[in-house]
Amino acid sequence: MIEKLNLTMLTDFYEITMANGYYCADMKDDIAYFDMFFRRIPDDGGYAIMAGLEQVLQYLDKLEFTDEDIEYLRSKKFFDERFLEYLKNFKFTCDVWAVPEGTPIFPYEPLITVRGPVMQAQFVETMILLLVNHQSLIATKASRIVRAAQGRPIMEFGTRRSHSTTAAIYGARASYIGGCAGTACTIADEEFGTPALGTMAHSWVQMFDNEYEAFKAYTKIYPTNATLLVDTYNVLKSGVPAAIKVFKELDPPNKGIRIDSGDIAYLTKKARKMLDDAGLEDCKIVISNSLDEYIIRDVLLEGACIDSFGVGERLITAKSEPVFGGVYKLSALEKDGEMIPKIKISENVEKITNPGFKTIWRLFDKDTDRALCDIIALDDEPAPSGDEYEIFDPNAVWKRKTITNFYAKNLREQVFKGGVKCYDSPSIGEIKKYCKEQLDLMWDEMKRFENPQTYYVDLSQKLWDLKHKMIEGNK
Amino acid sequence: MIEKLNLTMLTDFYEITMANGYYCADMKDDIAYFDMFFRRIPDDGGYAIMAGLEQVLQYLDKLEFTDEDIEYLRSKKFFDERFLEYLKNFKFTCDVWAVPEGTPIFPYEPLITVRGPVMQAQFVETMILLLVNHQSLIATKASRIVRAAQGRPIMEFGTRRSHSTTAAIYGARASYIGGCAGTACTIADEEFGTPALGTMAHSWVQMFDNEYEAFKAYTKIYPTNATLLVDTYNVLKSGVPAAIKVFKELDPPNKGIRIDSGDIAYLTKKARKMLDDAGLEDCKIVISNSLDEYIIRDVLLEGACIDSFGVGERLITAKSEPVFGGVYKLSALEKDGEMIPKIKISENVEKITNPGFKTIWRLFDKDTDRALCDIIALDDEPAPSGDEYEIFDPNAVWKRKTITNFYAKNLREQVFKGGVKCYDSPSIGEIKKYCKEQLDLMWDEMKRFENPQTYYVDLSQKLWDLKHKMIEGNK
Repeated sequence: MIEKLNLTMLTDFYEITMANGYYCADMKDDIAYFDMFFRRIPDDGGYAIMAGLEQVLQYLDKLEFTDEDIEYLRSKKFFDERFLEYLKNFKFTCDVWAVPEGTPIFPYEPLITVRGPVMQAQFVETMILLLVNHQSLIATKASRIVRAAQGRPIMEFGTRRSHSTTAAIYGARASYIGGCAGTACTIADEEFGTPALGTMAHSWVQMFDNEYEAFKAYTKIYPTNATLLVDTYNVLKSGVPAAIKVFKELDPPNKGIRIDSGDIAYLTKKARKMLDDAGLEDCKIVISNSLDEYIIRDVLLEGACIDSFGVGERLITAKSEPVFGGVYKLSALEKDGEMIPKIKISENVEKITNPGFKTIWRLFDKDTDRALCDIIALDDEPAPSGDEYEIFDPNAVWKRKTITNFYAKNLREQVFKGGVKCYDSPSIGEIKKYCKEQLDLMWDEMKRFENPQTYYVDLSQKLWDLKHKMIEGNK
Repeated sequence: MIEKLNLTMLTDFYEITMANGYYCADMKDDIAYFDMFFRRIPDDGGYAIMAGLEQVLQYLDKLEFTDEDIEYLRSKKFFDERFLEYLKNFKFTCDVWAVPEGTPIFPYEPLITVRGPVMQAQFVETMILLLVNHQSLIATKASRIVRAAQGRPIMEFGTRRSHSTTAAIYGARASYIGGCAGTACTIADEEFGTPALGTMAHSWVQMFDNEYEAFKAYTKIYPTNATLLVDTYNVLKSGVPAAIKVFKELDPPNKGIRIDSGDIAYLTKKARKMLDDAGLEDCKIVISNSLDEYIIRDVLLEGACIDSFGVGERLITAKSEPVFGGVYKLSALEKDGEMIPKIKISENVEKITNPGFKTIWRLFDKDTDRALCDIIALDDEPAPSGDEYEIFDPNAVWKRKTITNFYAKNLREQVFKGGVKCYDSPSIGEIKKYCKEQLDLMWDEMKRFENPQTYYVDLSQKLWDLKHKMIEGNK
């Protein structure tokens, strides 16, 4: 449903002033290459997860200025009338390459490259950044939280604290890609098939004369989903005893209690014992109270008895660091069929861009299939191959390492060709599965929450040479 | 455009399980009252700004289950067939009261109250929370940032780092309510009339052989909006000199430079001197680099020469605290025409709810019109009036104060009557103006960024008595 919207005008105003500028300067059809990449992993984590590409493809597929859009732009008294006429028949004709959703990604890798008339390739900057930044942020955070739970299911419960409607919907989608088992967000299930779950709020309990009545009524209606919220009044004194009484009377096939407040470790251990003593070993305990990866790790270390978690605001807003800093930079031009690499110099070394039309290779160990490193290379270079391949730190070139017994996979696929989608989008289930498989190929050392090992992302010799020649030439 | 979407299914799944539950338990038409309120001001600020109501009204006006929605629910094999039939003709029939957008708001105040059949009044929880939480969060953050800039315009520049599409669009709207002068988000201007602005990215500069050529081309096309981005290579060595050269040659009526990196205080002072020495006193300096209220305050204290600010990710995500914790709680039932107040007890005093159908009075000084305090009272109490009115801290009742020479205004309006909107929505410009006027009536002491004075929000004696009788009765 959301996908049906034409969001052409959801763009920074400067994309339009530049588009009109390129038109007026007779440059609109100059061929340019732009890379989307990011510079820092949120939470100082060891990896991020690519997400949001599907929505980018839908957006690109639907780029179109309506008459109302053009009328609005005309009302600004700012744009050339010929440009406005031109927008009427605007058609996206670019080529696009991208890293599939669910892939573990790292700083400086060109996650998306757009090649085409500068006017178009520039214009799509805002939405590409917005969509990929948001979903990659949430998928990455979800992956951390899922990891902390050590196999216990995580439900995404944050809709009410999300940053508006699509933050909830696409946030649920990204959480699922990152490993969550499901969501409270119903429309995300209806749209994407990310399983929606939920039982009752405190108000359900308050609507009845007491917890026992509330639980009994609920369990009669939902014997297969009888997860009872036991903390409306007092978890151990009234909530759990009432749940036990109802479960003993009605014996529903799926029994559970949910605790949404208080000391998780203490309450779950006590509740587990009460349930077990009552012969309700099959009753699950669900927790949902301002959780994140750190709290989940800690309460499990403390021996909390928990079967699954509902995680709300700290996941859906990525509260600990709510920004994924993807940027979109010009990397090359084509003039008379010749490629002219472009670089942005900065006094900060890490802000100097990688020039040229590039791609990404991931090298895997032939025996273990573990990922060894990534190489950002120029697109026309052959795949890394052979018995030995030397990698080096692009900022400290004396740090070198020889990779042996490896094979290389290209991380990117072409997704648009001449403005036409040429990519067979995987299902959300396939993306989630792919994400898990790919993460399993990464070493555990880089998955630590604090001070993870830095995964090697190096430049090919040819790209490094080009970059440094350009830096020198710019002095 | 966004407003045209039917977002009925954007709801936590438990709202639907409870709705079906109330239907099956023959309770669906029991009349209930729910309050939306929040408990803590983000960033430990002294006030928050109400926003998002307009989108709530649009949502309530359009509540409707489509055939596809019902088919989806049926596929869950979870809901009663009579309930699904009932949803086909679902009609929202509740009464709703709310605090208008732009109002300074405080913890525990019932910002929105919904009265009606419990099945409906419960169901709308998720979207009311989502919409009001998000926009109030951003309007509140914007208000802080605008205040830090001491009259200099703030532009909202965060679209690309927002949490998806509607976070950008409604975030731009909420920023405008909170005091921003405009936004980079074009579609927000087209939809709401929040002025969109923007000029060029670094890529514009890179597309030309040098900055001079890039600036000249731009200024020729946009003489009335010639704000040139001067930090692509080196601000003081190349960017500002090139801008000066172009401004001297072309003398556009509106001159400006934008700096997006580096030390703001140093660079703007140097740039200002270079511009002034060149006789370009009319050239404005715009800054836009990871700003928030603290950095803006500090660079102005350091004497930075800045005419306006573009604020991105730290505003659109409310980065320092990206959660507005609004909740939605049952406060009363009606049985046989009689009002039965409801309370949720908790071991945390601040989590105990205020029972009954309530409203909010704001008391103003008759001479200065300054706001003195707010009183949460039962709806059937008369307005606070008379020569003297004693207020007291609801958690420390010995702290008392007598208010004199005051008048009282009710902060809430009825916005829906029997499911029909009965509220004349103000324009976005009116909301922004109202917000500024109302904030000007609050004392400066409560607007500090750190340790602001706590504004008094007390309970009427009658409400306090009811609440404490119920707490005692619950023991």
